[in-house]
Amino acid sequence: MKIIHYKDIDAAPVTVQGAEKVTIRWLIAAEDGAPGFAMRLFEIQPEGHTPLHIHDSEHEVFILAGTGTVWKEGEEAPVGPGTAIFVPSGEKHCFFNRGKDVLRFLCMVPVEQ
Amino acid sequence: MKIIHYKDIDAAPVTVQGAEKVTIRWLIAAEDGAPGFAMRLFEIQPEGHTPLHIHDSEHEVFILAGTGTVWKEGEEAPVGPGTAIFVPSGEKHCFFNRGKDVLRFLCMVPVEQ
Repeated sequence: MKIIHYKDIDAAPVTVQGAEKVTIRWLIAAEDGAPGFAMRLFEIQPEGHTPLHIHDSEHEVFILAGTGTVWKEGEEAPVGPGTAIFVPSGEKHCFFNRGKDVLRFLCMVPVEQ
Repeated sequence: MKIIHYKDIDAAPVTVQGAEKVTIRWLIAAEDGAPGFAMRLFEIQPEGHTPLHIHDSEHEVFILAGTGTVWKEGEEAPVGPGTAIFVPSGEKHCFFNRGKDVLRFLCMVPVEQ
């Protein structure tokens, strides 16, 4: 069993093209023995956003703190602490920080096989 | 894309033997089209706990609020807001509320095939 506080894991900048002011922490990953899916914690600073992109794997997201939106079919839907979001495979998406504080959320994805 | 606040989903009592003062909300599940894993939100009231049990599927847990412990190899390890826990397949575990407020956490599991 792995037990770890997210603050004990270093936050790495997300360098994917289109990401602005975003960091990632890998909380649970394949190297922990996770066979199916990984848990990551993202932080987006004010005025930042993830890339507007599309991919084969799904996302399962839970907002922990902050004020943001998610791009859904061309519009921005508001999200905040306690919002769960399922982004199916092949659906375009992007998370924006629209507040004055950090936007913090979990994002689970399938582990790479 | 599904976007929902956890409070907009009814909390159902967990009736599994050994569970005390526990509710579950299914935030993302197979019926949402999630192909690999499901997201549930549990709340344990003070003095409550999940069953002490063991099973084939893994758990990925993230503590949102409260003060608790997780049973790990016969001892109780403290957990609180921001703690991530990976419970591998086949490892005995149990979550206890050891505080005065609700213990709230996410628990992701593989969807039943």
